[in-house]
Amino acid sequence: MAARRIIGVDLGGTKLLAGAVDPALGVHHRAQRTVTGLDQRTLLDVIVDAVQEIRESTGSEIEAVGFGIPVLMDHRTGRAVVGVHTPLAELAFPDVMAERLGLPVFVDNDGNTSAMAEHLAGAAQGYSEAIVLTLGTGIAGGLIIRDELYRGALGTAGEIGHVTIDYDGPWCQGNCRSRGCAEMFSSGSALAREARLLASVRPDSALAAAVRDGRELIGPFVTELAHDGDAAAIEAIALIGSRLGITIANLVNIFNPQIVVIGGGVIAAGELLLGPARASATSRLLPFLADHLSIVPARFGVEAGMVGAAALAYDQLARAATA
Amino acid sequence: MAARRIIGVDLGGTKLLAGAVDPALGVHHRAQRTVTGLDQRTLLDVIVDAVQEIRESTGSEIEAVGFGIPVLMDHRTGRAVVGVHTPLAELAFPDVMAERLGLPVFVDNDGNTSAMAEHLAGAAQGYSEAIVLTLGTGIAGGLIIRDELYRGALGTAGEIGHVTIDYDGPWCQGNCRSRGCAEMFSSGSALAREARLLASVRPDSALAAAVRDGRELIGPFVTELAHDGDAAAIEAIALIGSRLGITIANLVNIFNPQIVVIGGGVIAAGELLLGPARASATSRLLPFLADHLSIVPARFGVEAGMVGAAALAYDQLARAATA
Repeated sequence: MAARRIIGVDLGGTKLLAGAVDPALGVHHRAQRTVTGLDQRTLLDVIVDAVQEIRESTGSEIEAVGFGIPVLMDHRTGRAVVGVHTPLAELAFPDVMAERLGLPVFVDNDGNTSAMAEHLAGAAQGYSEAIVLTLGTGIAGGLIIRDELYRGALGTAGEIGHVTIDYDGPWCQGNCRSRGCAEMFSSGSALAREARLLASVRPDSALAAAVRDGRELIGPFVTELAHDGDAAAIEAIALIGSRLGITIANLVNIFNPQIVVIGGGVIAAGELLLGPARASATSRLLPFLADHLSIVPARFGVEAGMVGAAALAYDQLARAATA
Repeated sequence: MAARRIIGVDLGGTKLLAGAVDPALGVHHRAQRTVTGLDQRTLLDVIVDAVQEIRESTGSEIEAVGFGIPVLMDHRTGRAVVGVHTPLAELAFPDVMAERLGLPVFVDNDGNTSAMAEHLAGAAQGYSEAIVLTLGTGIAGGLIIRDELYRGALGTAGEIGHVTIDYDGPWCQGNCRSRGCAEMFSSGSALAREARLLASVRPDSALAAAVRDGRELIGPFVTELAHDGDAAAIEAIALIGSRLGITIANLVNIFNPQIVVIGGGVIAAGELLLGPARASATSRLLPFLADHLSIVPARFGVEAGMVGAAALAYDQLARAATA
């Protein structure tokens, strides 16, 4: 019998990550694409192309494709009602993809698929109350409540990136109509922004030198400089970590979870991010709450959304089989 | 057969409200006490006295007493771990009360008991995903998730009053160690504070006249002046309502509830509060979310905490009977 495989696809604001995932959530083949600034038609072509690449490279039969996409999903209709970072609004994405791929397609918000992966087999495994934050272009969130993913009334719960922590702050660049949203302070975009500001006031830093060399200060590069010991890059990460702690404290006051898991590209910074986040959250929380809280890195790291998308599809297939 | 009755007690930061409640959540006898600034021993005496007053005035046998108290409750031990507005921290409140009253005693956070009343028989009845905010001295919150009260990992979930909406804002007066908490902007205390500020800059207002007459601008009095048409009092209420909308938008981004219910003393302002709250929440929410949301006044008004405390006790007795 051929090994079972489902293709998981994590579509972010900047890149697409796809992989062939087995039922134990092991990843076997990977494909990656850059998707910044694509129009809808081109984006759909790129997605199909990445999925086909994996289908061809894996010897197994593919049962289905699971997608994590950065949109508000209306679970009653399966439609993406708002695409914050991607041009998928109002598209019947699951139907269109099923048609083009000739496979069953399952779709959820990328924050939800990441939470699903971490809860099923990652850092939140064994915890009934958990919050998973994915720090990429924006911040995606997923809520585990009473041991199950929570989607709210219509399917849009978990938009933690758009929780305001500064109601009079800068307008949200995530196209959400609000101001001072969490993702303006603690996402990969926020890291790049803070790094650019610091480069301009720390002329002796590696950050400043990189700017002089014409390098773009994107998140992964800033993180690399921080791991190499550049104080300004470390400071930029500490700043977004400290502000992440404010968001975490808010969520702990609301949910009283056992664990908060931090994933997405930005978690490549590791303790440079989590140390300041823990300190800031602890300083704002009642001691009883701070004492009963873990803040940990995602196990699946940048692959959580992709693995979770496949997990979602396995889960939905199993539910359909027993229904 | 004598009618069944449970005494519900809502202990706020300012006053205590008690009542004999029947199984259909009708209230039959009421008692009220002022509790501002009492030490723990006096507070306990006042509580016992109020309960005894109701026991004597009702002809029915009292089965139990339910309490809603403004503390963080550790549900593993039944202990109040932190008393934000009352001196009950570290006290084994349920045991002490059961001993002094000679009756079964059930205790939960006042935000939770209010949510329970509104969900069982009030404005949130029939909704599986609901948020109930109680605006009094501070803001208490209760979360209805998948048709049930949500308490989180240890029992402290729903501390909406301490969710920061201005991370660099004023230090929280609710003794929570954080800054810019929601209750600094939208509670009864916030209303009194804004009214005092407005009185000083609107010398022709009824607010200013009241200050000149030596009246204290507490929430209920400001609300009375607003209902009488004083523009400055209306402005004070609109201001805290508009900021309440920010907190509501945050909660909707997180939970995607069907309904948000606003209760507590401050809701006496009615549409003067809710109108600005709706406008502000709508301006900050994605249209899809704003279109699928109701923001309504609590049915039980200022009595929700008390009625819910009795409902909690009925619920716990029923669970014990079937266990």
